[in-house]
Amino acid sequence: MTANTIGQNFRVTTFGESHGGAVGCIIDGCPAGILIDSAEIEKELKRRATGQSKITSQRKEVDKVEILSGAFEGRTLGTPLTLLVKNKDAKSSDYEYLKDKYRPSHADFTYNQKYGRRAWTGGGRASARETTARVMAGVIAKKILKNICDIEILTYVIQVGEERANIELDEITYEKIESNIIRCPEEESSRKMIKLIEEVKREGDSVGGVIECVIKNIPSGLGEPVFDKLSADLAHACMSIPATKGFEIGSGFEGAKMKGSEHNDSFCISRGNISTKTNYSGGIQGGISNGQNIILRIAFKPTSTILKTQETVNESGEEILLDNVRGRHDPCVVPRAVPIVESMILITLIDHHMRNVAQNNLF
Amino acid sequence: MTANTIGQNFRVTTFGESHGGAVGCIIDGCPAGILIDSAEIEKELKRRATGQSKITSQRKEVDKVEILSGAFEGRTLGTPLTLLVKNKDAKSSDYEYLKDKYRPSHADFTYNQKYGRRAWTGGGRASARETTARVMAGVIAKKILKNICDIEILTYVIQVGEERANIELDEITYEKIESNIIRCPEEESSRKMIKLIEEVKREGDSVGGVIECVIKNIPSGLGEPVFDKLSADLAHACMSIPATKGFEIGSGFEGAKMKGSEHNDSFCISRGNISTKTNYSGGIQGGISNGQNIILRIAFKPTSTILKTQETVNESGEEILLDNVRGRHDPCVVPRAVPIVESMILITLIDHHMRNVAQNNLF
Amino acid sequence: MTANTIGQNFRVTTFGESHGGAVGCIIDGCPAGILIDSAEIEKELKRRATGQSKITSQRKEVDKVEILSGAFEGRTLGTPLTLLVKNKDAKSSDYEYLKDKYRPSHADFTYNQKYGRRAWTGGGRASARETTARVMAGVIAKKILKNICDIEILTYVIQVGEERANIELDEITYEKIESNIIRCPEEESSRKMIKLIEEVKREGDSVGGVIECVIKNIPSGLGEPVFDKLSADLAHACMSIPATKGFEIGSGFEGAKMKGSEHNDSFCISRGNISTKTNYSGGIQGGISNGQNIILRIAFKPTSTILKTQETVNESGEEILLDNVRGRHDPCVVPRAVPIVESMILITLIDHHMRNVAQNNLF
Amino acid sequence: MTANTIGQNFRVTTFGESHGGAVGCIIDGCPAGILIDSAEIEKELKRRATGQSKITSQRKEVDKVEILSGAFEGRTLGTPLTLLVKNKDAKSSDYEYLKDKYRPSHADFTYNQKYGRRAWTGGGRASARETTARVMAGVIAKKILKNICDIEILTYVIQVGEERANIELDEITYEKIESNIIRCPEEESSRKMIKLIEEVKREGDSVGGVIECVIKNIPSGLGEPVFDKLSADLAHACMSIPATKGFEIGSGFEGAKMKGSEHNDSFCISRGNISTKTNYSGGIQGGISNGQNIILRIAFKPTSTILKTQETVNESGEEILLDNVRGRHDPCVVPRAVPIVESMILITLIDHHMRNVAQNNLF
Repeated sequence: MTANTIGQNFRVTTFGESHGGAVGCIIDGCPAGILIDSAEIEKELKRRATGQSKITSQRKEVDKVEILSGAFEGRTLGTPLTLLVKNKDAKSSDYEYLKDKYRPSHADFTYNQKYGRRAWTGGGRASARETTARVMAGVIAKKILKNICDIEILTYVIQVGEERANIELDEITYEKIESNIIRCPEEESSRKMIKLIEEVKREGDSVGGVIECVIKNIPSGLGEPVFDKLSADLAHACMSIPATKGFEIGSGFEGAKMKGSEHNDSFCISRGNISTKTNYSGGIQGGISNGQNIILRIAFKPTSTILKTQETVNESGEEILLDNVRGRHDPCVVPRAVPIVESMILITLIDHHMRNVAQNNLF
Repeated sequence: MTANTIGQNFRVTTFGESHGGAVGCIIDGCPAGILIDSAEIEKELKRRATGQSKITSQRKEVDKVEILSGAFEGRTLGTPLTLLVKNKDAKSSDYEYLKDKYRPSHADFTYNQKYGRRAWTGGGRASARETTARVMAGVIAKKILKNICDIEILTYVIQVGEERANIELDEITYEKIESNIIRCPEEESSRKMIKLIEEVKREGDSVGGVIECVIKNIPSGLGEPVFDKLSADLAHACMSIPATKGFEIGSGFEGAKMKGSEHNDSFCISRGNISTKTNYSGGIQGGISNGQNIILRIAFKPTSTILKTQETVNESGEEILLDNVRGRHDPCVVPRAVPIVESMILITLIDHHMRNVAQNNLF
Repeated sequence: MTANTIGQNFRVTTFGESHGGAVGCIIDGCPAGILIDSAEIEKELKRRATGQSKITSQRKEVDKVEILSGAFEGRTLGTPLTLLVKNKDAKSSDYEYLKDKYRPSHADFTYNQKYGRRAWTGGGRASARETTARVMAGVIAKKILKNICDIEILTYVIQVGEERANIELDEITYEKIESNIIRCPEEESSRKMIKLIEEVKREGDSVGGVIECVIKNIPSGLGEPVFDKLSADLAHACMSIPATKGFEIGSGFEGAKMKGSEHNDSFCISRGNISTKTNYSGGIQGGISNGQNIILRIAFKPTSTILKTQETVNESGEEILLDNVRGRHDPCVVPRAVPIVESMILITLIDHHMRNVAQNNLF
Repeated sequence: MTANTIGQNFRVTTFGESHGGAVGCIIDGCPAGILIDSAEIEKELKRRATGQSKITSQRKEVDKVEILSGAFEGRTLGTPLTLLVKNKDAKSSDYEYLKDKYRPSHADFTYNQKYGRRAWTGGGRASARETTARVMAGVIAKKILKNICDIEILTYVIQVGEERANIELDEITYEKIESNIIRCPEEESSRKMIKLIEEVKREGDSVGGVIECVIKNIPSGLGEPVFDKLSADLAHACMSIPATKGFEIGSGFEGAKMKGSEHNDSFCISRGNISTKTNYSGGIQGGISNGQNIILRIAFKPTSTILKTQETVNESGEEILLDNVRGRHDPCVVPRAVPIVESMILITLIDHHMRNVAQNNLF
């Protein structure tokens, strides 16, 4: 797995800086014959876009998808599928004042340490703008998976700051998730979360949160036994999203408190199939999917960009004060991160399905 | 990254089942000229071995390291370094009664679903026995890193069940960690943890725990910006360890509760160098190391093997009761998992260093 | 190495079909700080372009390079460098008559067998149009190599049909190669080759040829001992060029006729350095460069597109006659293939240099 | 593809030096359920072994295969399959006189340049001893392919020195190939070849040769369109064999002399299937197999080890004379190289089949 590529058989490479010409992805290994439609991809991009509600950055992104290669007469060819969205012309001068300053908890300093230079116009490659490319690839991954199994993926916000929702797994629907701007399927919590974000926004501050994802109807047998456990690769995929600080599968950190006699998922027969009575494993045992729901959670830190004055240093090594004069930022990343998390999971699942087929469906 | 291989430039492939001929690893990409010594590797293997204390499995492993290739006159050659330990002759008949039964929360069922067969003699490839190979590779990784930087890595248990230690980062030493059988550097907590494990063991039950790791004196610039963020690759490496359920870096899930103004790590000048006042980032920003301490935590579930009667099903799809008649198991995996976690981190770090050098140290 | 990517540390992925939106490449792993200039790349593309002389296809390509990502203020950033050239609007209707026919020795049939569909408008992904992307990547590879060593690469035509030039290695210069439209540094042969191609063109036929390449001033130590021998990777890179049928290094197939006492390259001391008296090895011994000139040759078949009536079958499995009504084709690919060969070699060399540095320049 | 690994889905890693503990291979990605039998592998190893006839090295190798992991109850498990043969105890002292000398056209010098050291006892990793591991992997590859298609692979010597056999493709059988010690299916030529090798041997010299391989009944659709063309990957695999200097597919270098109207393989209908009238393509078009016979040739240089006095230099940079006092060497490598070539081709084919299935057999 290379730096800007994820996957072994379904290989997604992203490219682009926030203020360069475009951001996009190449999918190498995409099966031929998949219907492809810019409008369908653009619809999903709107879930990730800025300006979608009062609690996201107010910058207006209108992402128009170009299919540059790999499709013909509306279907994929099997050759590299290149999808991109052009970046709007942004005035570099807006960022001029940041040119030589290291914003706290941003990647300015580490990029300079690694490469000796950086695109200082708005985050460059480290900008969340890059995740647009991931969402485009996620749409394709989902379309392929829909041809293979009856996969259902539900991704939602369960926590903002200290506000944690009480979620009943069986009652979540896509409609409930999308019914509010924070994407929390539990109504009362969603209201509290939105209120909290509005407060934080007023203060020019930001707040963190947690996203949970449940994947249903996934075949058993996905995942490789040792280093490429499905759980390990999902952790890798999710922790590659900007601003992530933690990953849990099934019981997660709570599981560390439990006893084996409580935590073990007893096998049973349910409607003629082997099932488990509980699902502390989160659908993965020994790194391989067991056919139960996959459940995972990802922690996001508060957005690094805030409108308060902060202490930092500049490239000359002087301690300075930094005033962020840009008026637009995301006070909390989680509502927009929902489709990104979903995409990373879908990309990981289709890749593992292909790997499984290559080894185990030969005869 | 392939199924049984981890790393891109420092590529560790492990092989072996718990009751096959041997378990071992091949390191491809290992620099030439590294001093190599079986005794040094065996010493580290003892930290992972069963039978090391009253709170681990009482099975006696005495692992003797064979260097099968890649070394000559006591130093590595640059060619694939193959290290292995033979498995002791185990009586397959001990496991005969498990042959067609799916142990709850073990990998028996998922391996059968994936491959249509499994080595039913004691866990096969899914056994923690495989991690012996990782520890051998970790010793080599550490030796190379010691030539590059003054790396210090401190890995220890911070939680067993509900018992959480209060750790002062600055006071931890390797000696304190190794001063007790649970490997917790805080004395009072260590006593409570050991007591808890002894209780659990008496009940024939098991309990989970959390390991924390601090890595000091790592150069900045390690990690790739997008999918192969150092944090993502550390998550992948750590979540590939058996029994893991969660991973956190820096502030982790607690960070989700915080505000940006609290969480942002202000840059400052300390003894002439750019440093940060706080370290909620856990030493990694934008996926790249910033030279501060890397701090991470990993949650382990309670061991799946318990001595209590459990409900399950067999290969014929019948619901049955399972009595584990083997008298030996690990009531808690964390003390033995410490060197495994350490090895996975060291392997990840040296690989990222090599990747960084390949791209950024050419001229 | 994935289907549309070559290289491990300097990873070039190409994308695009001949009549899709664009063809281009992403270079992942490109060092930061390399000066990048569209005009410089476009200059090299002219060596590959159609319409450059009376012996190439008369279709007029004017390739304008767009740098879509990975550069900032005229230098590379270390992030994925995306370069592309748009395809000119081509009328699909020109190819309509080929839609369901399998052109002999083209990839129409095999693409359909593999993917169940193909872009029938002019070759699609199998078109030599894709090699435009390789030449762009080759320019970048060369610039990086020039920073590392005093590399000189001389690539030229030594054979067209039965006409073989007698080349004195020491007398070849870039200027002599570029002094004629066939790119053969030996003047008399070049005239005969051009005459032969003109004859073949008049007949609506095509002819094959051989390209030779000499690379000077390459450091020793490049190449991996076993599967990734420098010679094996050069063979892979060169044989990935459309229309190639053979590859030789050093003595090549002639070497099979020789005795060891003739073929062995005796080491000697020349100007204080270890050198060899002869160079039948072609600069590579045991898969690793020895510092002598690397010499290789590649055989190209005659262009498959000819203007004569041919027997073939269509998608319905009927035997038919095919008349190629397009008046433009390359009667011989070798003059335009020179920069493509060069690019594949340069990409291979920089990748191996990076791999070598990653393992062997750590301390 | 890493240095000591070949393949993407069927990944073969070899390890071992000629005078280390063992040479062996790990196959990662091997399907489960394949019958595995040491005796079957050992039988194939005898075709590669020294001491098999008067025209090979007289050193007696008796290779006993150990299956170290990945098999259980006589069948593969799907986990890494580790196969090895121990090296016989060799007296290092036999090689002491070579310790600081660079043998002409051997890898002594290049290994030292790359790694700063080498195993000077008999070639180390550069020894053809490593190919034992390839042949073991080839046996497994063949067994899997036999489950997928009715593959027939015929590999034989067509040239030794200037002596070239006239082979009728349709008349070759495995029995004819194995009927003589040179492995040339044409009887008269085989006698001349053997005579030539005996002469060369008497002189203490060596001679080169050419191996041809025909693969029948391979499915169409194998091979990736761009860099991983089946032809390019076969070139890579074959040119990774020690002592190779050239590779041809189909018409090869002769194809460069031909016209398109001669060389194009007209499609036709034969017994209801799409076939071609000629096969200058060698079974591969646009990098993808077309279902016709794959035909390729590989040139081998004369063995570098000869018993004549040669000029060379030592590690101190002094010009010296080298007398090879060892009485045993292979006067010509081609008879023993036949199973090695076959193995590399089989490994490449099964890997490409898996890659094809992963992308194109999902629904």
